[in-house]
Amino acid sequence: MHSAQNDKPDVIIREVALRDGLQSEPGFVATSDKLRLIHALAAAGVVLLETTSFVSPRAIPQLRDARELMDRVPRGWLCHEVMVPNLRGAREAADAGADRLIVFVSASETHNRKNVGCSIEQSMADLGAISGLAAAGNMAVAAAIATAFGCPYEGQVDRSAVLAIARRFVQAGADRITLADTTGMANPKQITQTVAFFKDHLPHTQICLHLHNNRGIAAANLYAGYLAGVRMFDTSLGGIGGCPNVPRAAGNLATEDVANMFEALGVRTGMDIDELIRAAGLLESILGRTLPGQVMKSGASA
Amino acid sequence: MHSAQNDKPDVIIREVALRDGLQSEPGFVATSDKLRLIHALAAAGVVLLETTSFVSPRAIPQLRDARELMDRVPRGWLCHEVMVPNLRGAREAADAGADRLIVFVSASETHNRKNVGCSIEQSMADLGAISGLAAAGNMAVAAAIATAFGCPYEGQVDRSAVLAIARRFVQAGADRITLADTTGMANPKQITQTVAFFKDHLPHTQICLHLHNNRGIAAANLYAGYLAGVRMFDTSLGGIGGCPNVPRAAGNLATEDVANMFEALGVRTGMDIDELIRAAGLLESILGRTLPGQVMKSGASA
Repeated sequence: MHSAQNDKPDVIIREVALRDGLQSEPGFVATSDKLRLIHALAAAGVVLLETTSFVSPRAIPQLRDARELMDRVPRGWLCHEVMVPNLRGAREAADAGADRLIVFVSASETHNRKNVGCSIEQSMADLGAISGLAAAGNMAVAAAIATAFGCPYEGQVDRSAVLAIARRFVQAGADRITLADTTGMANPKQITQTVAFFKDHLPHTQICLHLHNNRGIAAANLYAGYLAGVRMFDTSLGGIGGCPNVPRAAGNLATEDVANMFEALGVRTGMDIDELIRAAGLLESILGRTLPGQVMKSGASA
Repeated sequence: MHSAQNDKPDVIIREVALRDGLQSEPGFVATSDKLRLIHALAAAGVVLLETTSFVSPRAIPQLRDARELMDRVPRGWLCHEVMVPNLRGAREAADAGADRLIVFVSASETHNRKNVGCSIEQSMADLGAISGLAAAGNMAVAAAIATAFGCPYEGQVDRSAVLAIARRFVQAGADRITLADTTGMANPKQITQTVAFFKDHLPHTQICLHLHNNRGIAAANLYAGYLAGVRMFDTSLGGIGGCPNVPRAAGNLATEDVANMFEALGVRTGMDIDELIRAAGLLESILGRTLPGQVMKSGASA
């Protein structure tokens, strides 16, 4: 009991390169290469993967192999979380053996329409049915709220509106809320205050932060989130990712950079930095360009 | 009195692109282009510039125009700080009308030898004479300590050794100590503890942080420094800079990214973000490549 507790990481780093990262790439990455990446990530100690998304292959052709990929992924202790935009996607994800369904919506009406082509209410309409499907299949459901710290179209986003959406997700059975800074508009003070606000109003719901680096301070935002008590963060191998609608947008924080920082802080991640660097190198060779991650260039901290 | 106090920035962002940035570029940037950059920075509200370094033109040919540049820089409220490796450099800087001399040394013996070709003691040998020269010329002296958070050759650097060097600088009249994370080895906890340690032992000396991004978390380190009470930070327009000895090294935090973060936090920098973005665009056109700064791509925060 005691040693098991000691093995538990202090923070959970959730890998989103396969979904958020690869969907922002111009080309389709072969399913076999995605599988090589997943194996490399698993070897580095990653346990929580945003593996793919059951969206329309016309909308996001990069993820058109969602079913084939899910049929071939290693299972074991890997947890395959799969994004589902609607009930149809949820059914497909359930059929494909997803471990957890991720429902999502934007906090901003305009961004939601640009992102998935419908209103926030329409995005939420399938929630009850998805929740029932998950319960019947013994699957967990988590939720992600995009543009939670600001919208590139609407500007400031009201924290109470984000909470109202989160409450509906929680009432429908979501065991975790991801607050996403989709286009890098957050600042550390806002993170601190928003996390405190959510801890006050939804004290029993796990908060995950998903922070893009469009304004160069995602690492500061992540650290502020950690200081505020957040213990789960989305990151992306090599720092890939972005937003198809935002030119020259920055990606996520690199998994290996964040894991390296936490390990240097004495905060255990359960990850092997050198293996992560190896996985990032594999990703770099698959994509054929230099990736933004820094630790893959400079090496792990001493 | 009251309004003057209100105009005072809450943090000082010290611009190092002209020196730290340009000395890492493969080619020589024309003096006229450096002057255009300085004018653009001044228009954006920059007041503290690391303008150049009076080092050997053989060692750093990128700064071989130090004297010509100093002869042509705008003065007014701009403060031109100039790095000097030794007494000869200090004499030249004084002759050229530097507003402040910056003496420097590495906390690590090996790095100092690689950087300036002599021991720490040899680097410190001219300190008294430089200090006398500065006093005679009514110039301020500040000091920078490289590899203060770790050395790529020696690994961990003892905080007490850094303090011992800092004390010698302060005793010689330095009014400020810059702690430089030359190759991005620091972590936020180390920053917090080191700043507290320096505030304890040198309570009357201003601390400046100079943070490279080699491991992707310079923004987190800067924010930790701010929380610990640091109110001066070195940054580099467009995020240029690096280390000639470190392949694929990362630069400094981008001036416009840091200023944008502070302004979003309600911490006044005295800078105009849009003018900084314009200056970064000018730098990008001069260097002819995409720079790492993010706000220049995404725009200022709302």
